[in-house]
Amino acid sequence: MSGDAPPKEIIKGAIQALQETEGMDLSITLVGDEETNKSHVTHLKSGTASSRISFLHAPHTISMEDTPTKAVRNNPDSSLVKGIKHLSDESEIFISSGNTGAVVAAALFNLGRIPGVARPGLAGITPTVKSGSVVLIDIGATTDASPENLAQFGVMGNAFAKNVLGKEEPKVGLLNIGEEQSKGNKLTKKTVSLIHKTDLQYIGNVEPHLLLTEPPADVVICEGFAGNILIKAFEGGAEGTLGFFKQALRSSLRAKLGGLILRPTLKKLQNQLNYSQFGAVPLLGVKGIVFVAHGRSGARAIKNAILNARQASRWDLPGKIESEMERIDFSE
Amino acid sequence: MSGDAPPKEIIKGAIQALQETEGMDLSITLVGDEETNKSHVTHLKSGTASSRISFLHAPHTISMEDTPTKAVRNNPDSSLVKGIKHLSDESEIFISSGNTGAVVAAALFNLGRIPGVARPGLAGITPTVKSGSVVLIDIGATTDASPENLAQFGVMGNAFAKNVLGKEEPKVGLLNIGEEQSKGNKLTKKTVSLIHKTDLQYIGNVEPHLLLTEPPADVVICEGFAGNILIKAFEGGAEGTLGFFKQALRSSLRAKLGGLILRPTLKKLQNQLNYSQFGAVPLLGVKGIVFVAHGRSGARAIKNAILNARQASRWDLPGKIESEMERIDFSE
Repeated sequence: MSGDAPPKEIIKGAIQALQETEGMDLSITLVGDEETNKSHVTHLKSGTASSRISFLHAPHTISMEDTPTKAVRNNPDSSLVKGIKHLSDESEIFISSGNTGAVVAAALFNLGRIPGVARPGLAGITPTVKSGSVVLIDIGATTDASPENLAQFGVMGNAFAKNVLGKEEPKVGLLNIGEEQSKGNKLTKKTVSLIHKTDLQYIGNVEPHLLLTEPPADVVICEGFAGNILIKAFEGGAEGTLGFFKQALRSSLRAKLGGLILRPTLKKLQNQLNYSQFGAVPLLGVKGIVFVAHGRSGARAIKNAILNARQASRWDLPGKIESEMERIDFSE
Repeated sequence: MSGDAPPKEIIKGAIQALQETEGMDLSITLVGDEETNKSHVTHLKSGTASSRISFLHAPHTISMEDTPTKAVRNNPDSSLVKGIKHLSDESEIFISSGNTGAVVAAALFNLGRIPGVARPGLAGITPTVKSGSVVLIDIGATTDASPENLAQFGVMGNAFAKNVLGKEEPKVGLLNIGEEQSKGNKLTKKTVSLIHKTDLQYIGNVEPHLLLTEPPADVVICEGFAGNILIKAFEGGAEGTLGFFKQALRSSLRAKLGGLILRPTLKKLQNQLNYSQFGAVPLLGVKGIVFVAHGRSGARAIKNAILNARQASRWDLPGKIESEMERIDFSE
């Protein structure tokens, strides 16, 4: 209920996901105003998919403007909180395109943290030109993170890259403003000594400009504020480049002709770079499988989020993170 | 001497700048190993440009790996420190593609701060698709900046946008991870109340993804670490998009044909997006005109840096920043 797109778009994505998995083990509970949701399902011609949809009524909505902790405490009847509670009771996966901070707060209150984890991290996954992908953690769950938080993000991101992306010995780097060890701020400098206490294959500082082309690491640790700026700047850099390109395509007759011929290629590229392809990113460190989708997520993003998240229930990532955490002692 | 490109490249750029300004008031002092520099000038066929080149011998070099403050203190004979000292004595502009932190430290020690300015800020300038440009301050001079530092970056960036970019009443925003006022970290939240003590035309939080396409502000305040990540992620986002695009151009015969026709357009686009077009960015808040060029700057970037910086001596930006600072009281 609390994403930037109308509920109808979200429900459309859910129905599409069910239609693409006909005969498979997927059912969806729509959490929100029951009457609204039911009428959308009826009007959207969901066909046989509707038999795999159930409804959980939640009369309230937490908005993007709400202060996360307070909103979660004061709104036990919101779709976001009821959805997370449903996860701890009955469902296997929870997906939301709502207020990220509120999802994190609700997950912490109702699911709790994996033993040993101080703060959860959102693991972003970016495609790379070279092939393969890079895990960026944290991209916005925990702002004002401590060095210990960052080292733990590394451990969780490593578990994700190993178990989900199938990388055998992931290389782990630290997001920084220079390659050299002397570069960075107080936080990055303190973090390095803690990372050395882990058995991560640590390769040092990683700068943003190489991440999409020739990433030197499989997992990049970042503080939530900087990580969120990073991922949104990649998005902006891609949108800006496409914008400049489209402008250039109007600059001459020759360019216009080339643009016409390349129209299908450009469409494919735009799709490839669009966040809706990935759908949603996992919140690591809490006891449960929680995915956060982009606030602007429409039907396509939600469909992909559901299909990708569906794979997640097989990984038992919370269990794997727990056993990794047990092996590490961050104390001085 | 201390950039990532060899001195020969830097000198080539300097000679090109002199050649493009023949008959105009520009002369250049090359600071570094005098013998090396002289032999490059001789071999690079500088022609009449050589009469406007002088040499300042500096036997030492501060490297990218050096810790800024220590390196500046211990190396009074480095090209970087001697260059900054030359600025306070004789020259009007100093340009370096060396260690950014060391340039900042040397400028603080030898030129000093403009009265009222607590920390200097590097003002990045990004082009936008819509037209015009956006000033991002700070993009890496001051990491671990305080709320007061950030509010002052706003004042300095505003003076820059007004006096240099000719914007009458610049709109000023704060880089953040959400549009809503409740979003952000401790630093951004504390900064907002200080910004309200200025007479800046403050428009609130600004997210990275809109900056290159439809920027809501003319000046964006950011902490140095996040600002540096932002600018390098834009660079990476552009490089990544071009990389994916080139990949797509090999995917079919039709795409190959389109790519062939668009080759000149793509070349122009790549140039437009390349940092070397802008050359260098000004360090605001110190008593003197200091420009920092990208570490990777080659001849083209250095030439553009010199030509752009040459305009700067007319602005008297240090004087304008000083009078803006006098009007503001940040104390509680």
